[in-house]
Amino acid sequence: MSAAAQARRRRREDELEIVAFERGDFTSYSACGLPYYVGDLVTNVDTLIARSPEEHRRRGIRVHTRHEVIGIDTAARTVTVRDLDAGRERVESYDQVLVATGAVPIRPDVEGIDAQGIHGIQTITDGLALRRHLDGYPGHTRAVVIGGGYIGLEMAEAMQLHGMRVTLIDRNPQPMNTLDPDMGSLVGEALRDLGVEVRSGESAIGFEVVDRHVDAVVTDAGTVPTDIVVLGVGVRPNVALAESAGVDVGPSGGLATTSRMQTSADGVWAAGDCVEINHRISGRPVAIALGTHANKQGRVVGINVTGGDIEFPGVVGTAVTKVGPLEVARTGLRSRDLDRLGIDHVSATIESSTRAGYYPGAESITVKLIAETGSRRVMGGQIVGREGAARRVDIVALALWNEMTADDLSQVDLGYAPPFSPTWDPVLTAARRLAANLG
Amino acid sequence: MSAAAQARRRRREDELEIVAFERGDFTSYSACGLPYYVGDLVTNVDTLIARSPEEHRRRGIRVHTRHEVIGIDTAARTVTVRDLDAGRERVESYDQVLVATGAVPIRPDVEGIDAQGIHGIQTITDGLALRRHLDGYPGHTRAVVIGGGYIGLEMAEAMQLHGMRVTLIDRNPQPMNTLDPDMGSLVGEALRDLGVEVRSGESAIGFEVVDRHVDAVVTDAGTVPTDIVVLGVGVRPNVALAESAGVDVGPSGGLATTSRMQTSADGVWAAGDCVEINHRISGRPVAIALGTHANKQGRVVGINVTGGDIEFPGVVGTAVTKVGPLEVARTGLRSRDLDRLGIDHVSATIESSTRAGYYPGAESITVKLIAETGSRRVMGGQIVGREGAARRVDIVALALWNEMTADDLSQVDLGYAPPFSPTWDPVLTAARRLAANLG
Repeated sequence: MSAAAQARRRRREDELEIVAFERGDFTSYSACGLPYYVGDLVTNVDTLIARSPEEHRRRGIRVHTRHEVIGIDTAARTVTVRDLDAGRERVESYDQVLVATGAVPIRPDVEGIDAQGIHGIQTITDGLALRRHLDGYPGHTRAVVIGGGYIGLEMAEAMQLHGMRVTLIDRNPQPMNTLDPDMGSLVGEALRDLGVEVRSGESAIGFEVVDRHVDAVVTDAGTVPTDIVVLGVGVRPNVALAESAGVDVGPSGGLATTSRMQTSADGVWAAGDCVEINHRISGRPVAIALGTHANKQGRVVGINVTGGDIEFPGVVGTAVTKVGPLEVARTGLRSRDLDRLGIDHVSATIESSTRAGYYPGAESITVKLIAETGSRRVMGGQIVGREGAARRVDIVALALWNEMTADDLSQVDLGYAPPFSPTWDPVLTAARRLAANLG
Repeated sequence: MSAAAQARRRRREDELEIVAFERGDFTSYSACGLPYYVGDLVTNVDTLIARSPEEHRRRGIRVHTRHEVIGIDTAARTVTVRDLDAGRERVESYDQVLVATGAVPIRPDVEGIDAQGIHGIQTITDGLALRRHLDGYPGHTRAVVIGGGYIGLEMAEAMQLHGMRVTLIDRNPQPMNTLDPDMGSLVGEALRDLGVEVRSGESAIGFEVVDRHVDAVVTDAGTVPTDIVVLGVGVRPNVALAESAGVDVGPSGGLATTSRMQTSADGVWAAGDCVEINHRISGRPVAIALGTHANKQGRVVGINVTGGDIEFPGVVGTAVTKVGPLEVARTGLRSRDLDRLGIDHVSATIESSTRAGYYPGAESITVKLIAETGSRRVMGGQIVGREGAARRVDIVALALWNEMTADDLSQVDLGYAPPFSPTWDPVLTAARRLAANLG
C-alpha cells in the first residue's frame, strides 16, 4: 500500500488506475505493534491501522479486501483473483504488477501444533485471537513463548504485562541469536532478572493437549506445563505466488530484485518481506522482515512505476527491541558472520552509562563494536542496556553505511550534554577501544 | 588533564615527567554539570569531579593547584608560575607545553555588575556560590537569567527547580540563537509553556542595587525586579597567556592550531575551550566551548606529545540541551550561516513523533534539515521536541560528517521498533521531504 499511495501521489486517477487485492480484512497496519496490543500497552487495535481500505479508496486506490490473488500470468499480464466471500474467481489484466505478499510465519511441524491456545502473532487477526484468549480465560496464568528473537522477547513482555508467569524456550544457546553470544548472554541475564524463565538450547518437539487445548510444551529436555503458547520462531518470505509465475527466488529464499525493485519477470515488481535485500556490509542478499524496509521499498516501487528512477540502497542490518526496561540493538555483521565470510576482525566491548554518571536516570549500557583488521572499517555493533541505550545503534548504522573506520568513528562530533551522554558517548568510547585493539 | 592522563598511559614516569599547574582548586570536573548541581538534580558536587588532584598525583601526574602560570618563554622553554597561596613566583622548564587555559565568561561591562546576587556559572566555585545563595536566602523567589543559549536555558530550569519565578532576558529575537528563528521560536513557546517569562530582543544595560545586593535588571525595554541574576551570555577563548607568549590567535578569537593541536610556537600545544576548531561544513575556524571537544583534543595532544600521530578531525557543530521536558539539538550550519557563505540552500521542516504514534510515551518532535541546492548535500539540522527527540541529532551529525545527500540520508537503515520510532524515523521523513523540496 506504500507503493500504491506513492504512485497515487504522483499520478492522477485519469492517468493511472491502481487496484490492490488483499486476502485479509485490513490494510496498512503495523504488525510490529501487535505485541503491544496484546500486552495492553496499546488498548485500541484501530490505532495500529495507519490507513483502512476505505481511506485508501477515498484516495483513489481500488482496494479489494478478502480477495486472494492465486495466479499471475506474466506473459498475458493478468492475475487470477479469488473473491473469498463469493467463492468466485476472475481474471484481471495489468500493465505493471507489484508482489507484496509478505512473509509466512514458521510453524513447527510437531504433534499438537493445531491445539487451541497455541498462537501465532503475525496478523491483526492473530492479535485479536490472542487478546480474546487472554480476556476469556483469566484463570490462565502460565505462558510459554517459543523463540528468543525480537517477537519472542516482545511477546514475553506482553504476557508478563498480563501478569502471567512466562517461560521462554529458545533452541539457540542464548536469546537474541542476532547478537554474538557474549552480548546475547546479557539479554538472557536481564530476562531472568525480569522474572522470565529462560530455557536456552532447548527445542519444542511437541505439545501435550487436553480437551483440545494445549496443556504443556514438550521439549528435547523436558515438559513445560502451560495455559497458552505463543510462537515467535520467525518468518520466511512468502514467495509461492510469484515463484509459481516464474519469478526468480534468490539464495536467501526471498524474491530476487534489482535495486529498483524489479523482479526477473517483465512488468513484475516486488517489495516488502517477500523479497531479499542487499546487505551492504556482507554484500550478500538477506531476507529481513521489517516494516521500515518494506515501507521504503514500497515507496521506491511507487516512484519507479510512475516513471521515476530511484534505488533501494540496501540495508546494514539494523534492528532494535525492548523488553520491559531492557533495550537491545544490533547492526551490521556479528563476529560469527565475519568468521564465516573469512574476514579477519577485532572487537571491543565497553560498559558505560547512557547519561553523565552524576545525572539522574543514568543507566547502564554495554556496547560491542567489531572492525575488519586490515581496513580498520567498522563492520558491526551490538548494544544491550537500559533506557536510552538502543537508539545509539543509529550512530553505528551510519558509520557502517559510510564505511567509517574505528578511528574516524571515535572522533565524531556527537551531541553532548549531561542529560544525554557522558563526555565521551558510549559509542565513542567503544570506537576508541576498538581502534586501540586494532593496534 | 585529559592530555596528561593520555600521555601518562603511554609513557612511564621514568620516561616522561608530567607537571600540571591549575590556578583553581579543582581538576577534571564537569563544568557542564554545574546547572544540574545548582538545580539540585545533582546533590553532591563531588560527583562532578571525574578525577581530583590527588587521584591524578597517584597516577604519576604532578598536579599543582592554586598555581597560576603567568608567562611562557617559548625560546627558553620555560614557564613562570605564581604560587597563589605563598605569593611566590618561580620558573620551570619544559620540553613540551600544553596551553589549556579554557574560556572566560563574557561579563557585561554595565553599572552594578559587581553587586551581590549576580552570579556567573563557569567554575565549581561559581556553582558553590550560587547554591550558597539559594540555600541562604529562601525568601529570594525571583530569578533573572541573562542569555538564551545553552547555559541560559539550563540555568532557567535550575532556578525553576528551586521554585523561583524565572525571567529569561535575551538580546536575540528568539532563544537559542544557534537555531534558525523558526526553530528558536518553538523553544520560546515551550519555555513560556513551562512558566518562564521570556523577554527576547532585550538587552541588559545595568542593574539596580540596594544594600550592595542586586534588586532589578535594567534593560533597554524596562526594569525587571529580581532577587538573583545568573549570567549566561557566553564565553570567549582565554588566550591572554599564550598570546603574550607570541602564539598566533586565529580569526575566531581562539588559539590557532594544526589538526595535531600544535600552535604556531615550537613546542607549544593547545587544546580545549582556548583553541579554535575547524568546522567541517563551513571550512571556517570556530570557537566552541564544549567539554567533549576539549576532551578529544586533550587525548590528541597526549598521544602526539608521546610520539604518536593523530589528528583532531574538526567538528560539525553538534550541540544538545534540555529544559524540563523540552529537548533542543542542532548540528551543522543554519540557514543564515549558508546565506552568509553564499551557498544556495533549501530546507524542510516536519513534525512527527518520537515513537510509533500508538505507542505509550510517543512525544512530539520537529525536525528541520537544510541542504545545499546543487550538491543536495545535507548542511545542517535542528531538532526541537520532547523526550527522545534530541539524540536523533547524532544521525544528522553523522550524515554531515560523511557529506551525505538528502536522498542518501532518507534511505538509511536506522533502528525501527514501535517503542523507538515511527516506521519512518522523523529524521528520515525530514530527509525525504528535503529531497522532494530540492526537486
